[in-house]
Amino acid sequence: MKAEDTLRKMAAERPLVHHLTNYVTVNLVANATLCAGALPVMAHAAEEVEEMVAHASALAINMGTLDPPWIEAMLKAGREANRRGIPIVLDPVGVGATSFRTEMAAKLLSEVEFSAVCGNAGEIATIAGLEAEVRGVESLGGDARTAVREAAKSLGATVAATGPTDFVSDGERIFAVENGHPLMGKIVGSGCASTAIIACFAAAANDASLETVSEALAFFGRAGEDAAEGPEVGGPGTFEGHLLDAVAALAAEPRLLEGRLRTSEVESG
Amino acid sequence: MKAEDTLRKMAAERPLVHHLTNYVTVNLVANATLCAGALPVMAHAAEEVEEMVAHASALAINMGTLDPPWIEAMLKAGREANRRGIPIVLDPVGVGATSFRTEMAAKLLSEVEFSAVCGNAGEIATIAGLEAEVRGVESLGGDARTAVREAAKSLGATVAATGPTDFVSDGERIFAVENGHPLMGKIVGSGCASTAIIACFAAAANDASLETVSEALAFFGRAGEDAAEGPEVGGPGTFEGHLLDAVAALAAEPRLLEGRLRTSEVESG
Amino acid sequence: MKAEDTLRKMAAERPLVHHLTNYVTVNLVANATLCAGALPVMAHAAEEVEEMVAHASALAINMGTLDPPWIEAMLKAGREANRRGIPIVLDPVGVGATSFRTEMAAKLLSEVEFSAVCGNAGEIATIAGLEAEVRGVESLGGDARTAVREAAKSLGATVAATGPTDFVSDGERIFAVENGHPLMGKIVGSGCASTAIIACFAAAANDASLETVSEALAFFGRAGEDAAEGPEVGGPGTFEGHLLDAVAALAAEPRLLEGRLRTSEVESG
Repeated sequence: MKAEDTLRKMAAERPLVHHLTNYVTVNLVANATLCAGALPVMAHAAEEVEEMVAHASALAINMGTLDPPWIEAMLKAGREANRRGIPIVLDPVGVGATSFRTEMAAKLLSEVEFSAVCGNAGEIATIAGLEAEVRGVESLGGDARTAVREAAKSLGATVAATGPTDFVSDGERIFAVENGHPLMGKIVGSGCASTAIIACFAAAANDASLETVSEALAFFGRAGEDAAEGPEVGGPGTFEGHLLDAVAALAAEPRLLEGRLRTSEVESG
Repeated sequence: MKAEDTLRKMAAERPLVHHLTNYVTVNLVANATLCAGALPVMAHAAEEVEEMVAHASALAINMGTLDPPWIEAMLKAGREANRRGIPIVLDPVGVGATSFRTEMAAKLLSEVEFSAVCGNAGEIATIAGLEAEVRGVESLGGDARTAVREAAKSLGATVAATGPTDFVSDGERIFAVENGHPLMGKIVGSGCASTAIIACFAAAANDASLETVSEALAFFGRAGEDAAEGPEVGGPGTFEGHLLDAVAALAAEPRLLEGRLRTSEVESG
Repeated sequence: MKAEDTLRKMAAERPLVHHLTNYVTVNLVANATLCAGALPVMAHAAEEVEEMVAHASALAINMGTLDPPWIEAMLKAGREANRRGIPIVLDPVGVGATSFRTEMAAKLLSEVEFSAVCGNAGEIATIAGLEAEVRGVESLGGDARTAVREAAKSLGATVAATGPTDFVSDGERIFAVENGHPLMGKIVGSGCASTAIIACFAAAANDASLETVSEALAFFGRAGEDAAEGPEVGGPGTFEGHLLDAVAALAAEPRLLEGRLRTSEVESG
C-alpha cells in the first residue's frame, strides 16, 4: 500500500499503537504517533499489558532503557500480540553495546515473532551476526545493505537499518530509502520515532511488509526534509518541533507526498 | 477566587506541587507547573514521598503509566496529604481501558480523599459508572456534562472533564469552560498539563472548589488560545513550546486575563 | 584546557557519556550531550551498568528521581568508573529536601569518588553542612561562594553551585562564572543539563578540574545568552529548543566563544 493510502486509512480508523519504549524519547515517540494519525498508548505493568495490547492494532517494542521487569512485560505483550496476529515492531536499541542487551534481544527474538525490526546500521549488523561497532546506543558504521538482508533472512521478518540512506529487506529484495535530512541524526530519538512511525503504518496496513516499512521510512524522511526547510529552524533543538509539525501536516494532507518519496529496489533477490 | 488573584498569590508564595505522574508527559507537567508560578517536584520513592509531600501545598496524582510500586507510593503520599489537609488532584488516565486501571483508580479513590478529579470525557464517564468508550488512554466520547455531575456526586469532589468544552461540577452545579484551542488536543499531555495547572491553582487557593478548578482550566485554555495565535506555530510540535510561553506570560501578567476567561454556570443544581 | 580546545577534542573523539539520571529531564540531558558533541547513553539495569560504563569516558549521576534500585545501579556504575579512572560527576538534586535524599547523597559520596559535584546553591550548602533552604528540588538561597569551597574541601572534588552567578571551587581557589541568562532558571532541567555539559567536558578533557568545570559552565551559560537573543524566543517554552541550537552551534564553531566566556578567579585560596 502506498504511504498516501496508509495515511488515509490511519486517519479514518485511528488505530491504537501500544508502545513499550524507553523513558528518554518516550514523549517524542508518543507525539510522533499522534501526529501521524494513530493513537499512542504507553503501558508497561505486567498486570495490564496483555489486556491493553488486545485493543491495539500494532505493538512497538523499544529496548532503549531495558531492565528485567520491562523485559517480562515485553514478552507478555509480545506473546499476546502474536496470539492476536497484530504486527509487532522491534527497535533493538544498543544491541551489541552490552552482553545484557545482546542476550535480551536474542530472548525477545526467540520468544516473540516480530513482523519488523528497525535499528541503526550497527544494531542490525549485530543482529545479523556481522561485525559492527556500537558505542553506547550510537552506531558507528557497518554495512547496512548486507546487514538488513542477512538479518531479515535469519529472522523471517522485514528488517530496516536507518541512516543517511535507509535500507530495508525482506530477506530477498532490498529497498533503499533516500528521504531524510542530516538534522534527524542530530536529535535524540529520531530512530525511536522512525520505529514508531513504522508501527503506525503497520497498524493501519495490518502488515509490516517490505513495502509498508519502506513507505513509512520514506514518509518520515520526507517530513524531516520539510521540517528542515523552514527558516525558523536553527539547529537540532528547534528542528524537533518542526519535525512533528511536518509529520502532522503530511498526515493531514497525504497528497502532498505524491512523487516525493524516494524508495527504490536496489537488489531484487 | 478569580484566576488573576490565584496567580498573584502563586507568584508571591511559590507553592510546592508534588507530582506522582507518568514518564510520558512528565517534562511538560513539570514545565507547566513552573511556568504557572509554582515549584514542581517529582519524587516517587516510598522512602520519601511522605516527607516530600509534607513540604507541598498540593499533590497531583496521574495514573498514566501506572505500576504496583507507584500505586503504593501514590497511596502513601495521598494518605499523608489527607492527614495534612492539602488538596489532592487525580488524573485517572486510561481508566476503563484495562481492568487493572479501573481497579487501581477505585482503590485510590477509596483509600485517599481527592479534592478534584480531572480526566477526559471517557475516563470521567467510567468513574461515574456510565457508558464510555476509552481506547488506550484516549477518550472517544461520552456525555461529559452528565458524567461530571454524577462522578462529583458519588465522590464528593470537584470533577472536571476536559474536551472542546470543559465541564466541571461539584455534584450540584455544572460549569462550562469554553476557553481552549483544537491544537491542545493534538499534543500528548495537554490533559496531564491541565491537571497540573489545577493542582497549582489548588495549591495557591488552598482549595479545589468548583470555581478554582474552572478558573484553572479557563486560564490554561486561554494560554492555548494565545499560543495558537502566533504566526510561528505550524502544528502540534511548535505549539507545545508556545503553550508554555503563554502560560508563563499570563502568569507573569494576570491582568491580561481580565474579561477573557469564558466560564459559565450551565446547571445550577 | 580552554573551552574551545575541549570542544574541538570532543568533536574529534565523540566520547561516550553514561548518564544515570532522572525521568523528568532525561530528554534534555541526552540532547544537550549530543548537541555538545558527545554521545549520550542512558542505561540503568544493574545487569549492564558496569559493562556500559566501561565504554564511557565519563559518568554523570543525577539524583532527581531516586529510588533504591537506581541507587544500586549508581553505586555499581560509580565503583566501576572509579576502577577505570574515568571522571564522575554528581548532581545531588533535592539533597536536603528529604532525609532519604540526604542519606543517599551521603552514601554515594562515601562509596564512590566523584571528580565533580554540581548543584544549586541550596543543595551544595546542604552538602557542605551549611544552613540552606531547599523546597522540593528548588534552591531558595544559600551562600554559594562559601558553600562551594567548603564542600570541595571536605569532598576533595571540584564543586559547582549554579545560579545567576555560578561559583566553582577546588577547595582552595574559587572561580565565578558570569555567563548565563535568567530564562535558564525558568525551564525545568537547566541544572541537569549543566551537569551533563560538565560531564561532556570532563569526558573530553579527561579531568574535572576547576578550570574544566568552569569552562563547561561558561560555555553553557554563553549558549543560554545566544539563545535568549533570538527574536523567536517568547518565553521558557520556545527558549529550550533555541538553547539546544545554541549549544550545537557553539560546539560546531568553538572560535565563536573566543573572548566571550566570563570566568574569573574571585578567591585564590
